Amino acid sequence: MRILILGGDGYLGWATSMHFARRGHEVHAVDNYLRRRAHQEAGTDSLTPIGASLPARVEAFREVTGFEIGVTEGDLTDWDLTQRVFREVQPEAIVHYGEMPSAPYSMIDRDHAVFTQTNNVVNTLNVLFAMAEITPDAHLVKLGTMGEYGTPNIDIEEGYLEIAHNGRTDTLPFPKIPGSMYHLSKVHDSHNVHFACRIWGLRATDLNQGVVYGIQTEETALEERLLTRFDYDEVFGTALNRFCLQAVIGHPLTAYGKGGQTRGYLNIVDTLRCVELAATNPAEAGEFRVFNQFTEQFSIVELAELVQKAGAEVGLDVQVEHVENPRVELEEHYYNAKHTKLLDLGLEPHLLSETLIESMFETIERYKDRVIPDHIDPKTRWRGVREHTAP
Amino acid sequence: MRILILGGDGYLGWATSMHFARRGHEVHAVDNYLRRRAHQEAGTDSLTPIGASLPARVEAFREVTGFEIGVTEGDLTDWDLTQRVFREVQPEAIVHYGEMPSAPYSMIDRDHAVFTQTNNVVNTLNVLFAMAEITPDAHLVKLGTMGEYGTPNIDIEEGYLEIAHNGRTDTLPFPKIPGSMYHLSKVHDSHNVHFACRIWGLRATDLNQGVVYGIQTEETALEERLLTRFDYDEVFGTALNRFCLQAVIGHPLTAYGKGGQTRGYLNIVDTLRCVELAATNPAEAGEFRVFNQFTEQFSIVELAELVQKAGAEVGLDVQVEHVENPRVELEEHYYNAKHTKLLDLGLEPHLLSETLIESMFETIERYKDRVIPDHIDPKTRWRGVREHTAP
Repeated sequence: MRILILGGDGYLGWATSMHFARRGHEVHAVDNYLRRRAHQEAGTDSLTPIGASLPARVEAFREVTGFEIGVTEGDLTDWDLTQRVFREVQPEAIVHYGEMPSAPYSMIDRDHAVFTQTNNVVNTLNVLFAMAEITPDAHLVKLGTMGEYGTPNIDIEEGYLEIAHNGRTDTLPFPKIPGSMYHLSKVHDSHNVHFACRIWGLRATDLNQGVVYGIQTEETALEERLLTRFDYDEVFGTALNRFCLQAVIGHPLTAYGKGGQTRGYLNIVDTLRCVELAATNPAEAGEFRVFNQFTEQFSIVELAELVQKAGAEVGLDVQVEHVENPRVELEEHYYNAKHTKLLDLGLEPHLLSETLIESMFETIERYKDRVIPDHIDPKTRWRGVREHTAP
Repeated sequence: MRILILGGDGYLGWATSMHFARRGHEVHAVDNYLRRRAHQEAGTDSLTPIGASLPARVEAFREVTGFEIGVTEGDLTDWDLTQRVFREVQPEAIVHYGEMPSAPYSMIDRDHAVFTQTNNVVNTLNVLFAMAEITPDAHLVKLGTMGEYGTPNIDIEEGYLEIAHNGRTDTLPFPKIPGSMYHLSKVHDSHNVHFACRIWGLRATDLNQGVVYGIQTEETALEERLLTRFDYDEVFGTALNRFCLQAVIGHPLTAYGKGGQTRGYLNIVDTLRCVELAATNPAEAGEFRVFNQFTEQFSIVELAELVQKAGAEVGLDVQVEHVENPRVELEEHYYNAKHTKLLDLGLEPHLLSETLIESMFETIERYKDRVIPDHIDPKTRWRGVREHTAP
């Protein structure tokens, strides 16, 4: 299959590019290095050393495995570039990770909020128009987020909800209550992609993904030059990855508020498998299909306790600190999100285990001299704008 | 009350500015002449002659009524300008009409779609950040559209829906199925405004407005120089206004498809009253309040028959033509939208009557030499992008 991977230099994009290429697919990766630039500006970096550029990583991958990956270094908000890539590659599937992915980044100030929303909305619109005009039978596998739903007081279904109201019924998009300017951008995307399926008959699968953890996949483990990035800073790092790193360097685990915040989680190797299952089982023409992509639910306190316990096994004295929550979110709430559609397609989950956490400790230990500790504690406050209101 | 009217040069914005100013409020209007430019580019124009610029109209209004209206000519996607206006005016209420308002315009091609979404989303984000930073107690009266809901098979509630699901209940945002890139931009706005209320405690009322008809308000009728614009072209004209003009110039009424499309409608004088009721009864701090702003439902066929009947009364031979529907929409569907909240605040609707249609005929008759007939038939096709797909 000819596959475009948008955001192919990222944590998941690079791992996904290698995963598909090594299974014989014709992969072409696109990236504008937005994440690398954001890290440079903030003075942060990936824990793991990644190559100097996407072409360098692809060359290393070719040397190690013999498989090729095509590359375009460029920005998908540029319509000329987007069209050119679609015309040259003629993709059958498009895996779209190519967005600004951080909630805290989007909440820094107005500039970051506007950038996040315009970047994500415009590049997704460009992908939709390129599909409609150039490859109308291709299948879009769009990465969304479980964070689009927020924390409603009812069970979260996969994208749609059958509603009975005043004696009539309809199946409608599940209502969304996103919790940051970034999560809002993904809700905007979901509406736009749904529309393109309805109006132009495009095929799309929206993967509402939970929080991903883990460092290694089959391919990243082959050689150090094939490692994917691993972020642990307050802006790009996510809960379990951050906790594992904090445990290794002796920093108290930063549990925000009461820590009852519950979310769906999955191992990076399951992300690759889910995306593969979606791509190889495409949506119908005109169909906007939504899968909730995670394997288990945990609260922050549960995760912290798991890391603490795994730490004790290997002699790490792990403390948990309940820091003031920089976000505006419920810290105790109902949460029950359905996630059966990917299981029905054949997903065999790699559930979180102490063994996995201990193997993450090992990899982190190897690179711990690279840690920049200044950016571990949370700084970006959701109410920051209001707090700076002039009297 | 100090009121900012964003989009103060438009069909509703200009009429609203005069309405508030003549009732003793301190009004400041902002406009970047987007609509005037779009008409110039397309070779179309308002039926009614409007002044050369917003300052010229405001000067005429002062001469006629003695009341002042402040003016800023500028673009609210410009953050410096937005901040400056908020700091200078210190508004207590912001009436936000300042968006690209046309569904066909947004469906012309990729450039128009991307422009519509970025323009509307960015200027609304700027307004929200300006409120949070400069006037956190002000009340945003945001014009939305009934078109955000689409045509679900259940009753449409005012913004929220109480949902019982698997034994639990919650009140959640009503699911949205918008029908154009423009309507999508309004859905994006709604999510962003809701978020700003939740996170920063802002006050907002989202007025999901139906299709507005009519030419005259108390103020526009005072003198020709105070007329508001009246669009009848395929891009900016709306159903009943277009039908009335078509009747007067002897053009068959352009009913799209079967004509069973049912929507909410209201008289422009009721728009002004609704906005006034919202502004003078502000939402609570942190509240995102949604009103459905229309007074009656009609199908296209019903409207066409009303215009035909009123035409017969005054000797016009009005034909109805069912033209191929350029849009992708249901032409026969259930439609029952609630609209009690503005009535509860005191709205006394001006329902559609033959008398009103006949008075519209009169005003149109006066300016019919200005009609540019080339742009009456629909050209912008919702499936246009797919139809041009390269083989």
